[in-house]
Amino acid sequence: MLVAELETPAVVVDLDVVERNLSRMADYCRDKNLRLRPHAKTHKIPALAKWQLEKGAQGITVAKIGEAKVMVDAGITDILIAYPVFGGGKAEKLAELATRANLTVAVDSLEVADAISTELNRKSANVGILVEIDVGFRRCGIASEDEVLALAQKVDALPNLQFNGLMFFPGHFQVVERERAAMRVGVNDLLSRIQNKIKESGLPLTTVSGGSTPTALESHLFVGVNETRPGMYIFNDRTMVGIGVAKEEDCALSVVTTVVSTSVSGRAIIDAGSKTLSSDRYPTGDGKGFALIREDPEAQLEQLTEEHGHVDISRSTREYHVGQRLTVIPNHVCSTVNMHNQIYGVRGDQVETVWEVAGRGKVQ
Amino acid sequence: MLVAELETPAVVVDLDVVERNLSRMADYCRDKNLRLRPHAKTHKIPALAKWQLEKGAQGITVAKIGEAKVMVDAGITDILIAYPVFGGGKAEKLAELATRANLTVAVDSLEVADAISTELNRKSANVGILVEIDVGFRRCGIASEDEVLALAQKVDALPNLQFNGLMFFPGHFQVVERERAAMRVGVNDLLSRIQNKIKESGLPLTTVSGGSTPTALESHLFVGVNETRPGMYIFNDRTMVGIGVAKEEDCALSVVTTVVSTSVSGRAIIDAGSKTLSSDRYPTGDGKGFALIREDPEAQLEQLTEEHGHVDISRSTREYHVGQRLTVIPNHVCSTVNMHNQIYGVRGDQVETVWEVAGRGKVQ
Repeated sequence: MLVAELETPAVVVDLDVVERNLSRMADYCRDKNLRLRPHAKTHKIPALAKWQLEKGAQGITVAKIGEAKVMVDAGITDILIAYPVFGGGKAEKLAELATRANLTVAVDSLEVADAISTELNRKSANVGILVEIDVGFRRCGIASEDEVLALAQKVDALPNLQFNGLMFFPGHFQVVERERAAMRVGVNDLLSRIQNKIKESGLPLTTVSGGSTPTALESHLFVGVNETRPGMYIFNDRTMVGIGVAKEEDCALSVVTTVVSTSVSGRAIIDAGSKTLSSDRYPTGDGKGFALIREDPEAQLEQLTEEHGHVDISRSTREYHVGQRLTVIPNHVCSTVNMHNQIYGVRGDQVETVWEVAGRGKVQ
Repeated sequence: MLVAELETPAVVVDLDVVERNLSRMADYCRDKNLRLRPHAKTHKIPALAKWQLEKGAQGITVAKIGEAKVMVDAGITDILIAYPVFGGGKAEKLAELATRANLTVAVDSLEVADAISTELNRKSANVGILVEIDVGFRRCGIASEDEVLALAQKVDALPNLQFNGLMFFPGHFQVVERERAAMRVGVNDLLSRIQNKIKESGLPLTTVSGGSTPTALESHLFVGVNETRPGMYIFNDRTMVGIGVAKEEDCALSVVTTVVSTSVSGRAIIDAGSKTLSSDRYPTGDGKGFALIREDPEAQLEQLTEEHGHVDISRSTREYHVGQRLTVIPNHVCSTVNMHNQIYGVRGDQVETVWEVAGRGKVQ
């Protein structure tokens, strides 16, 4: 089947670009002696996780237990759940998965560790634990070396849990290189203090897991980091281009759309709105727009309603008419994929494969 | 099963509130002699569409052909597709559905009408046509009475299409009542001119379809409108409360979440992020926040990442700890439902039913 024959909106992934993106990251990690543990939240597709493993990743990362189950069921056996697993039957599900796979869980509280330990003990299963530290994003994690050590010691003493090290997510590093370098100074100071404290205590420090695509190729610049968890690098997106960690030609994923109305002057309406692209904003520069339009950089996708993309064509010299196809690179690729039941793997003008987004909607 | 036993995040719908919301709208429409054609994009669930029909709706509205198919397959036979159906196999699918249901399609261009007509003719099926007019939202639609008439005449002359009237979407009316009243003056002037033009031409004008929840209970104030297409009114949301067309007790849909981290001072992290709630903004007032937290109006859901909701608790007097449940009303209910494979119908503290969101992801 030809890409041109796909009904729109259609999410297409250029397989050659994926291959290049995976190789670049794997080569970097080999070169710097880092373990690569890609975050599968970006694609939620076991076949793509396996491709990452074949390219040299040691394991994968997921956020939710439901996502972990999809990956374990597909035969993937080394998984970090980078999320506080808590509530309902989650600890029980974790324990069941831990009988079938080598799991690690990030925690930042004793409540979470306790609940997990109890269920694991019941099933005679074990998981590794990373204590999450807050390096300034102020989401999850602990920022005091004394509190990190205290939790690490308590966790390590709990049945069926083994403290393996530290994890952090530098979510605020989604900025240009100069700003990242400035922020790294303070983060490295914190990382040093915490790691020294752990080492002095005699606890093992097998893993220090950094993360995120913006900082992935800078992982060797963070003190002690020996693992990285980029997600978006497999596809990239408009935001990654905006902060300079990818070029437009590194964007593997696009959404093929059709112009369905041009009856309002200065505007063309495409058949991709917030239920196709997501409403995620563009955090760089003037913050405007919801996607990059590949065929016409002078046009701006200025507004989204649920099924309509409102393209401002007032500054464009291109002619617009109903039926034209436009290919757009979304602001945030993880959120776009998460809208869709299927996405297409393409090479040149040919559709090579259709993937079910098997982990989609696994919010629990 | 108890609501308290649901694993979080869980989207729950209060059946008593839905019942009340449906009755209020149906009573209004009966009272004002208006046809009610709810937009099913909000829920995408055939059982809820049928409930709306039982309560007095004449038919339903959908955006995409894939949504129409879900509803026709479930036995619903009077459907308006309020979207320019164009591209790929869409006209062909429309024609197939038109052999099984009474369909109406909104168009604003001859290109769309032409393509539909060709496929309908091939299958000996017919659809009604509404010409979409632009009343100021600048999305789809025609704003000149001469051009509306010209398209209506051309459409009516095409095989297997019958011009039935006009449709508009006042998307810019998502503001408070005083501002809506001011905008209505200009819209009524346009509606009068266009309707006079159509009537003078001798074309039938069976339907003038207005729409949207913010204007639904004001439909009788729009010149000539005899049909209304509210979507959100079945559930309501934070934005509807913000513009004053619903009260908090009219919000039937909430997301039950769990606090999973409190390790960062001034913040509590819940297990509902943008992949649970959507990133849709709150367009009223200061525009801040991504949901209303029912249990604590002093807390604000100030930031979302994919699976984390970042709640600012610095102004709250409540104690927060891991494991607490918080119930939140999303900014935009249509986008929230669209994230989920299932949602739960509840009455009091009991879960009564689980619905598959059958139309979810039907973006084509």
